[in-house]
Amino acid sequence: MTVATVSEAATRLDLYRSLARQLRADSIRCSTAAGSGHPTSSLSAADLIAVLLAGHLRYDFDRPDTLANDHLIFSKGHASPLVYAMFRAAGAIDDAELLTFRKFGSRLEGHPTPILPWVDVATGSLGQGLPIGVGIALAGKRLLKAPFHVWILVGDSESAEGSIWEGFDLAGHEGLENVTAILDINRLGQRGPTELEWNTDAYAARIRSFGWDAIVIDGHDLSQIDSALGRARSSSRPTAIVARTVKGKGVSFLEDKPGWHGKALDAEQAKQALAEIGDEPSRAFEVPSPPAWRPAPRPAAKAPDLKRYTDPVATRKAYGDAIAALGAARPDVVVLDAEVSNSTHAEDFKKTAPDRFFEMYIAEQRMVAVAVGMQVVGFVPFASTFAAFLTRAYDFIRMAAISRADIRLSGSHAGVSIGEDGPSQMALEDLAMMRAVHGSTVLYPCDGNQTAKLVAAMADLRGISYIRTTRANTPVLYRPEDEFPIGGSRVVRGGDGDDRVTVVAAGITVHESLKAADDLAKTGVKIRVIDAYSVKPLDAKGIAKAVRETGGRVVVVEDHWPEGGLGDAVVSGLVSLGVKDVALRHLAVRDMPTSGKPAELLEAAGLAARDIAAAVRALLA
Amino acid sequence: MTVATVSEAATRLDLYRSLARQLRADSIRCSTAAGSGHPTSSLSAADLIAVLLAGHLRYDFDRPDTLANDHLIFSKGHASPLVYAMFRAAGAIDDAELLTFRKFGSRLEGHPTPILPWVDVATGSLGQGLPIGVGIALAGKRLLKAPFHVWILVGDSESAEGSIWEGFDLAGHEGLENVTAILDINRLGQRGPTELEWNTDAYAARIRSFGWDAIVIDGHDLSQIDSALGRARSSSRPTAIVARTVKGKGVSFLEDKPGWHGKALDAEQAKQALAEIGDEPSRAFEVPSPPAWRPAPRPAAKAPDLKRYTDPVATRKAYGDAIAALGAARPDVVVLDAEVSNSTHAEDFKKTAPDRFFEMYIAEQRMVAVAVGMQVVGFVPFASTFAAFLTRAYDFIRMAAISRADIRLSGSHAGVSIGEDGPSQMALEDLAMMRAVHGSTVLYPCDGNQTAKLVAAMADLRGISYIRTTRANTPVLYRPEDEFPIGGSRVVRGGDGDDRVTVVAAGITVHESLKAADDLAKTGVKIRVIDAYSVKPLDAKGIAKAVRETGGRVVVVEDHWPEGGLGDAVVSGLVSLGVKDVALRHLAVRDMPTSGKPAELLEAAGLAARDIAAAVRALLA
Repeated sequence: MTVATVSEAATRLDLYRSLARQLRADSIRCSTAAGSGHPTSSLSAADLIAVLLAGHLRYDFDRPDTLANDHLIFSKGHASPLVYAMFRAAGAIDDAELLTFRKFGSRLEGHPTPILPWVDVATGSLGQGLPIGVGIALAGKRLLKAPFHVWILVGDSESAEGSIWEGFDLAGHEGLENVTAILDINRLGQRGPTELEWNTDAYAARIRSFGWDAIVIDGHDLSQIDSALGRARSSSRPTAIVARTVKGKGVSFLEDKPGWHGKALDAEQAKQALAEIGDEPSRAFEVPSPPAWRPAPRPAAKAPDLKRYTDPVATRKAYGDAIAALGAARPDVVVLDAEVSNSTHAEDFKKTAPDRFFEMYIAEQRMVAVAVGMQVVGFVPFASTFAAFLTRAYDFIRMAAISRADIRLSGSHAGVSIGEDGPSQMALEDLAMMRAVHGSTVLYPCDGNQTAKLVAAMADLRGISYIRTTRANTPVLYRPEDEFPIGGSRVVRGGDGDDRVTVVAAGITVHESLKAADDLAKTGVKIRVIDAYSVKPLDAKGIAKAVRETGGRVVVVEDHWPEGGLGDAVVSGLVSLGVKDVALRHLAVRDMPTSGKPAELLEAAGLAARDIAAAVRALLA
Repeated sequence: MTVATVSEAATRLDLYRSLARQLRADSIRCSTAAGSGHPTSSLSAADLIAVLLAGHLRYDFDRPDTLANDHLIFSKGHASPLVYAMFRAAGAIDDAELLTFRKFGSRLEGHPTPILPWVDVATGSLGQGLPIGVGIALAGKRLLKAPFHVWILVGDSESAEGSIWEGFDLAGHEGLENVTAILDINRLGQRGPTELEWNTDAYAARIRSFGWDAIVIDGHDLSQIDSALGRARSSSRPTAIVARTVKGKGVSFLEDKPGWHGKALDAEQAKQALAEIGDEPSRAFEVPSPPAWRPAPRPAAKAPDLKRYTDPVATRKAYGDAIAALGAARPDVVVLDAEVSNSTHAEDFKKTAPDRFFEMYIAEQRMVAVAVGMQVVGFVPFASTFAAFLTRAYDFIRMAAISRADIRLSGSHAGVSIGEDGPSQMALEDLAMMRAVHGSTVLYPCDGNQTAKLVAAMADLRGISYIRTTRANTPVLYRPEDEFPIGGSRVVRGGDGDDRVTVVAAGITVHESLKAADDLAKTGVKIRVIDAYSVKPLDAKGIAKAVRETGGRVVVVEDHWPEGGLGDAVVSGLVSLGVKDVALRHLAVRDMPTSGKPAELLEAAGLAARDIAAAVRALLA
């Protein structure tokens, strides 16, 4: 890396001042070249980032994957001009690339994403960078015992997001002295003043009440910034630097002016702004190096010793057994749960790897955020709660896909079959939600042995994978030796050529379908039952073959709303493959469920064996 | 209502004690009869609720819709045995119904829902009752100027949810003296101790930092409770009562014991518990009456004077114009936005009804929560943000459906067509997410006049309705006089019988499809283009007719992931209606988008006119 020689005589503050000037100029230059972006949100934080980059961040831009590196997350991702100006100042990108900002084909997207090697996670949905950074810090302290520090630039507007307080709370609770939040209190949001404007004491009081140290400073006083960052790094507690700043700082016609959020300067305005700032050719600045440190070597991973089931077991319990087996076999697997680990059975992981279990309490957003953070530093997270409550974290899951994160989610208590607890606890939209995540894998096993194999496979999957589990015990259909490839399906009844209807089911409805098959067989009607355990990718070819062989007659039965789940997946698959003359009955939950026994609720929803048999008969009538 | 005569000589505290005893006994009786439920979580709060019910809550159980009534929300909805025991004590239900708890067909579901007239909203997904209650209080203070007070029972575990702090923050910011949060600090969560256990001072410090008064009490000292509730009602600030309680209080073998969460006592255990409590036959207690008060009469509603468009306009702008027209015409319409009202154009509402615009800042969960709260007291809320950020509130939207709430959501900046801001700001899963909400309506207009009509229709829709709007200006296709019924569609090109392929589009892709039709027409290929503006309910019949008439050939093109959106809806509709020989091309966003110009991104995603034309030609090849 080319590093400019800085005069030995130049003071530390002069260096910071020079860097801040360049960061401001480059933030304006790249956004003006793009014709869009957030220069004023970058200018408010330029002094903070200049001092951090040149004085405190320990980061080897040539080796971004080095585990000793500090982490810097822009939770206020719209300050991307400043991110890229910083990369330019560190010598990581050149000026020509800087000016590709927001252009098609450029790595410098409107909001930062990890297609750049120096970006840990995508930000741009506010309130996420802080809890993700806390997750990295948690892994750094408790798992890696690493020397790195996590720095997070937080906007003032985003402190309205509850997830910010989930992050503060966790770091306070865990006593993470290796994380620093730098709050850029520039008073102005997108459409006007923030709630607390420049009431930095109010911010500090809130943050302190969540167990952090808080230092209130003038965010444009380089000396105060330097001192605060130094104190934060050496503190024994998580520290917030509450920096009073001015939006648009450094350019007279932008400073603290409303109406400038998310607007690039035109060429004439930029010229004037650069003249005020004192534009000089962009150059590279030296960034402190990380210490020579390597993590302790881990024991080699082994194949997990999966439990073998013969008696009925709940798939949620089989999930717990499987992650426990993974915990024993693989040192990189970590497990998180949102205070329901005795229901999801995530608690079983504590038997084999108690140090790698993380209680997230009832805060699903931070659970997903911490999972994303932990995979940044090489861990393989599994995170679980009731499937219904994963809806709470949908924005985090969506963003995790943009972060190219590899995380595994488990949702228990799916569908009306949970019984008495009622609809608030029943996941009936999770398949739709998780299918509509880019690159996701959606699994829904029906027995213990299948669950074991699928959970083991998830450990090696890329992207966002999801497993839906069932509350009640279900019979064992498969042998422990059976394999369940991702994207596959299983014919669990029929297939001999004399069956006349295909029933596609998954999870709990596989068992109802088999009961229906038994009942129908008594009247001479043979059906084929397919276990579509891989909802995405779906085995559309296998299902299409079966449907063709059964005269186009197909029943899809799912414990889920009719929209976006297995039914939509099967039908789209069949039509996309050109299966003609499809005659469909789609059994799904169409009315709002109530409380009751699982069997009562399956019957009320029209998902019971008798309903499946009736649908088959209707197709044959 | 039957009200037991209480001896004139009995002291207030004796009355409370007697009621608390009954609430405890009935919480155990009903959950034991059910064989499931959360008796210990009810016992910890029984004293708090006894004093509230008999001494402070002003509520006419015979007239639950009276606007003068106080509101009581169990944010910890799993304490439903206590809810129903309270209804029994108020004489609203009888003992026989109490014992139907959690049984199939009973109104007394596992978690409370508004199928009971005394329940405002469904709870059971933790962290929601508080912000919803704050929404009711906000409407009470700023809109109705009503005398009612909102009381919210909050669990300690749920304070880990960020949405709780979004609620505290809003009430503090708005200075809502008409809301009281009663925190039941019983130290034990589902699987073990809470983060803060009995550190009531830490709770109080956090809550105070968000602008509330906080009173720390012994939650089993009836006199302290009485005094605190009185002070809370008369306070000039929102007040939290931080009550140290004991889980399972009143039953020796349950008190502060782990392992009892969500477990009913068996018959023998219940017998012993009731003996300790001192069970007596359940009776009715007098509840204070609400004051004689009626809201100020409102001007009569008129038909909105919708804007008429001839020049290109963004549908998000037409949304703003339409809600402004509704604001002028209807006194019951309220608008909320999550700090992006200059982008969603919700700010236009301020021109006609500034008093009914509510800034929620960047906190989408509380935005939906407040919308739910406001419809509890008769308002017609529209809430908006970028469509991508509605994912943040999915759990609240899901629960709103269980609450039978009527709310309207607007999501702007849908799809890759937003351009330079990149994927974090692009909604690509919103159609899937919103389709999979029970009873939802999902609309996606393509021009200004259509948007105006659909927004006006939303004001009268029941349930959860959603409109997806586009960032860029789009041409005007329709006349202001045109009507767009919910569940309808429009043929915007072809339909004369000589067209050979149907293209189903919505929103931005309607315009690309029309360009494709123009290009194809030059080569003699005629197509039919359908504007499926009503994604749910979909006009499956109309689309099926078109597809049949074009030989089964259909292209679906959507600015959305392939899963769960328009494509799935169309295909499921066609197959359900028995359309045979469907030949489909489904154009959707299949790779992670980047930044770029809208046209570049539509082309990169394969959604541009040339791609549609190519798909048509492929079907005809």
